[in-house]
Amino acid sequence: MRALLLGFGNVGRKLAEILTVERPQHPGLHSLDLELCGIVTRSHGALVAAPGAALDLASALTAYRTRGGFAKENPQYTSLQALEAVRTLDYDVLVELTVLSIREQGEPALSHLREALRRGRHVVTANKGPIAFAYQELAALAQAQGVQLLHESTVMDGAPLFNLVGSSLKGCTLQAVSGILNSTTNFVLQAMERGVSLPEAVATAQAEGFAEADPRHDLEGWDAAAKITVLANALMGAMQTPFAVEREGITAVTPERVREVLSRGKRLKLVCRAWRDAGQVRTRVALEELPAAHPFCTLSGNGSVVRLETDLMGPILVAQEEPTLSDTAYGVLNDLLTLAES
Amino acid sequence: MRALLLGFGNVGRKLAEILTVERPQHPGLHSLDLELCGIVTRSHGALVAAPGAALDLASALTAYRTRGGFAKENPQYTSLQALEAVRTLDYDVLVELTVLSIREQGEPALSHLREALRRGRHVVTANKGPIAFAYQELAALAQAQGVQLLHESTVMDGAPLFNLVGSSLKGCTLQAVSGILNSTTNFVLQAMERGVSLPEAVATAQAEGFAEADPRHDLEGWDAAAKITVLANALMGAMQTPFAVEREGITAVTPERVREVLSRGKRLKLVCRAWRDAGQVRTRVALEELPAAHPFCTLSGNGSVVRLETDLMGPILVAQEEPTLSDTAYGVLNDLLTLAES
Repeated sequence: MRALLLGFGNVGRKLAEILTVERPQHPGLHSLDLELCGIVTRSHGALVAAPGAALDLASALTAYRTRGGFAKENPQYTSLQALEAVRTLDYDVLVELTVLSIREQGEPALSHLREALRRGRHVVTANKGPIAFAYQELAALAQAQGVQLLHESTVMDGAPLFNLVGSSLKGCTLQAVSGILNSTTNFVLQAMERGVSLPEAVATAQAEGFAEADPRHDLEGWDAAAKITVLANALMGAMQTPFAVEREGITAVTPERVREVLSRGKRLKLVCRAWRDAGQVRTRVALEELPAAHPFCTLSGNGSVVRLETDLMGPILVAQEEPTLSDTAYGVLNDLLTLAES
Repeated sequence: MRALLLGFGNVGRKLAEILTVERPQHPGLHSLDLELCGIVTRSHGALVAAPGAALDLASALTAYRTRGGFAKENPQYTSLQALEAVRTLDYDVLVELTVLSIREQGEPALSHLREALRRGRHVVTANKGPIAFAYQELAALAQAQGVQLLHESTVMDGAPLFNLVGSSLKGCTLQAVSGILNSTTNFVLQAMERGVSLPEAVATAQAEGFAEADPRHDLEGWDAAAKITVLANALMGAMQTPFAVEREGITAVTPERVREVLSRGKRLKLVCRAWRDAGQVRTRVALEELPAAHPFCTLSGNGSVVRLETDLMGPILVAQEEPTLSDTAYGVLNDLLTLAES
């Protein structure tokens, strides 16, 4: 299976590391037959293998880490842009790992996916933008072309969600989904329970590596809104965008408020919800006071949890306890293994 | 798809109810093409359809409920025994819903499965005995015959576990599994935290319908031991039986001990564990003192929870909050839908 990789940030490099350096430690990966025809970044260059040949991923990773980008001296170096690569290179699966832009409504990743699907290529995306802004269009296109559109790591990293629903909730209609899906806000709210101020808590989250340099995307609830939209679209048949989510962030929350809630035996949490209402799917990201014994409250600082409610079974909870970069990379890998099997 | 049903207890009747009375409420079941060629019980008679014909499941259910068994006046009534039915009837899938016997080492269900697989028929089992006592033998036989052996509801009812691992943890090696898998003991331990005695708590669990008439199977840890063996065998490649589990029950636990643990900010829980140790899989069911904030402690009285630890991802938790009979029946249904798809 030949893959074209778009983006070579933390997730892409971790994926490369698992596939090369760490691979011998993982017996389950021994039979994976995957080669890369190209890696294209936005501002750190691109490598493209000669037709029929493949990149040496281990050397590419080392070179990128040493120089903070691909080296122009490398004979495989090119200034090819992502969309052009998607249109012209020869690959079986497009692996989209670029960064979500709410402002650009999922672009340019959305165009990358649309173009790859039009060419009849499989798509694996860790970028939730296209799924949050145009899932039904892309799913229909994939179906018409007889290819797969996989996106396990768009919500809760590699923790089982989309594959779980497909394999384990067969015949069920999903009535409601709820959860705590944004690590940064959950971490910050927990820190405020100990009296830490919002800016200090954000700084700690940044230092620990799971909050972005510009944390507004998390603090204003946009990341959570994008995730609940992905769940509503992909699991409940909705046709929404993150702009349709009733959205509240945590920017106005003070340690005093958080501690006042705590003093009443409850905890303030930023909860995502999608539910059916009169034939529509409604979505919300809002601060809620949950009982301290609620399962959403036992999460560690940067974990995630989702509750799935169906017509045929009692509620199921899936939680991810201590996600690291490996979890997101693994979500992509699981999707690639799904393709390799089929 | 033609099914032969063995056992028509609570789970079997609930399954029949979902497939008949409740079916119109579940859009996901509309396309399921399933007919029954026979239902065989141990002591309440059997119904067998004429060759090529199918049972009227709705009438069978009503008649059984009215009389507490099948009516001899019914022209489809027969005194056929289970093993003979497995050997002689014409079906695509054997649905094994009889009761687990630890003493009989999974028999007679084990013989039913072995015989169906030898005849090249698919098997769906909710009885954990055969998986706990002979999984590797049965799995090898199913593979050799090109048929499927499905058992989603053997642990945590219909909550995603075996299908989850197959679909969502591809390429992963499962390093350890732990969880709270027996509802009765969890309910009883929680009741003892409120000062209720063990016999009183057991009586309540029986009145609420989730403890067996003879509760020793639960209280002595045998049900938990069978479940952790199923997980070790089916997910970690072990070849064990419940007799190999290092096993502790709760029969000697007093409310005083439970409350003393609680006074130290911890909770006494019967925890199941399977883990790798020097190339072997070890299994244990034991009382453990867990911190009150541990995710295993937020379960309601009769819920279940499992933690999966792999080489490629951080730990994943799956919890079932408020299981009812529907959940077990749904596990069987999900397996039938898997077969119908393939």
